[in-house]
Amino acid sequence: MDTPQAAPEIAVSRWFNSDPLTLAGLRGRPVLLHAFQMLCPGCVAHGTPQAEKAHRMFQQTDLMVIGLHTVFEHHAAMTPAALEAFIHEYRLTMAIGVDEAGSGGGMPVTMTRYGMRGTPSAVLIGRDGTILHHGFGKEDDMALGARIAQALG
Amino acid sequence: MDTPQAAPEIAVSRWFNSDPLTLAGLRGRPVLLHAFQMLCPGCVAHGTPQAEKAHRMFQQTDLMVIGLHTVFEHHAAMTPAALEAFIHEYRLTMAIGVDEAGSGGGMPVTMTRYGMRGTPSAVLIGRDGTILHHGFGKEDDMALGARIAQALG
Amino acid sequence: MDTPQAAPEIAVSRWFNSDPLTLAGLRGRPVLLHAFQMLCPGCVAHGTPQAEKAHRMFQQTDLMVIGLHTVFEHHAAMTPAALEAFIHEYRLTMAIGVDEAGSGGGMPVTMTRYGMRGTPSAVLIGRDGTILHHGFGKEDDMALGARIAQALG
Amino acid sequence: MDTPQAAPEIAVSRWFNSDPLTLAGLRGRPVLLHAFQMLCPGCVAHGTPQAEKAHRMFQQTDLMVIGLHTVFEHHAAMTPAALEAFIHEYRLTMAIGVDEAGSGGGMPVTMTRYGMRGTPSAVLIGRDGTILHHGFGKEDDMALGARIAQALG
Repeated sequence: MDTPQAAPEIAVSRWFNSDPLTLAGLRGRPVLLHAFQMLCPGCVAHGTPQAEKAHRMFQQTDLMVIGLHTVFEHHAAMTPAALEAFIHEYRLTMAIGVDEAGSGGGMPVTMTRYGMRGTPSAVLIGRDGTILHHGFGKEDDMALGARIAQALG
Repeated sequence: MDTPQAAPEIAVSRWFNSDPLTLAGLRGRPVLLHAFQMLCPGCVAHGTPQAEKAHRMFQQTDLMVIGLHTVFEHHAAMTPAALEAFIHEYRLTMAIGVDEAGSGGGMPVTMTRYGMRGTPSAVLIGRDGTILHHGFGKEDDMALGARIAQALG
Repeated sequence: MDTPQAAPEIAVSRWFNSDPLTLAGLRGRPVLLHAFQMLCPGCVAHGTPQAEKAHRMFQQTDLMVIGLHTVFEHHAAMTPAALEAFIHEYRLTMAIGVDEAGSGGGMPVTMTRYGMRGTPSAVLIGRDGTILHHGFGKEDDMALGARIAQALG
Repeated sequence: MDTPQAAPEIAVSRWFNSDPLTLAGLRGRPVLLHAFQMLCPGCVAHGTPQAEKAHRMFQQTDLMVIGLHTVFEHHAAMTPAALEAFIHEYRLTMAIGVDEAGSGGGMPVTMTRYGMRGTPSAVLIGRDGTILHHGFGKEDDMALGARIAQALG
């Protein structure tokens, strides 16, 4: 059996749709972390709308959904100003943080801490701050709904 | 607050993919009842594949998914022989029962007992035999996944 | 270069949505023949709605769209009565003919004449009665629209 | 009957996937002009993949498909550098031109000349340089395929 792994703190340089958040401050609540890039086709077509849907569907619960803009390529194109326009055009209402740039311009800080393989990635964090699920690529809606309900229950 | 409603027993004249089942015999397990007709476009396009998907996704749990063929129109077209061909062509592996014909050729027995409005209808029954959810029409995958996980938890 | 092949006459035992039709009588008009079975998942999900869409989209032209119910399996399930219910439930308005049963209960007559490999199959016939295109499986909407426009032009 | 309208020349400040093009230089060939913005959800989900599909499907013909990046909002986000990343991520191979910025930072030049209402917009231009079709919003694949075949025929 795996030892439960503590979720590393997120490092965010700018927030949209929310005051600044930390996982430490959210301890006691389940958190869905959706790592995306605004120019990642799989994120735009599926992952990001799915996270936004979870945010709206579980609004009456204490689940917190956080979109994390983890830019690891095309840095000049995916600026915070561009992300702001993206959020506006796609009518995203979930909290969205910009993952802090890494040294040397490569992988951003939170992405590195979690060892994410790319975007979209989804991390579900339990009330006790441990990682319940860490997936890369397309997540099935039914499976995600079940996982969130388990984390809430 | 609503009084929890006991799920009426199902009345099935023929089973596919399963030995005969009763809700009484399944007491203690959550049950997803998917009422459909093989010539109902909304069932074929969405509801029935969704129930089959739930059957496969929660196979490691003690959820029981039951498809119920609730023929209330076009009786001559939707015979058990036709249903058998449908099950074969759509590769359905969940348990499927034919809802017992009502007197006078109208609504079948189980459909009447549950007061279903049409097909597809979905009823989620808790471990204690009470109805947790009763929906008509298209169900969202994420919401269904969450409801099943709650019933299991 | 291939020699243009003359389209064999269709053999239909019963018509829905239309008086009896023959390719001979339609000579001078382009004809789209959509071979399907009401229990064929690929037909129901894609091919048959696509043929119905072509029927409606090109209504102002002299294109004739004919659905051909080519039952080669599950004969007891896909009777004319069942087909009639299917046409009603799926709101099909194109002309639909039941392909004449073959001797021995296997492939029906028209299907054999055309050497169709299964359902869905689509045959586009030119104004001069020759076969312009014969495809098996999923047809792309854009490609089909272009082919029909060429046949009309 | 409408008088055929001559297609105004396009004004492009930068090209991707192509040497500079003009409608004058393309006279004699049909041209499909797809006006889009990289942050327009309807373009990304439908219009732009559709134009790319037409580009690939009619590659053996003399149809010319031109994507026109008509930025009329969020100018800071939709720079040529951002567009280049978008083209790379979405694997677009059709010719794409950046519509020349209008005076005052509003509607770009070509968009104004054509009186486009927004993005996505599609303009089909005949061999003689007249506008055959000008649509705004979602175009049906089958209808577009038919229109292109007519323009080619």
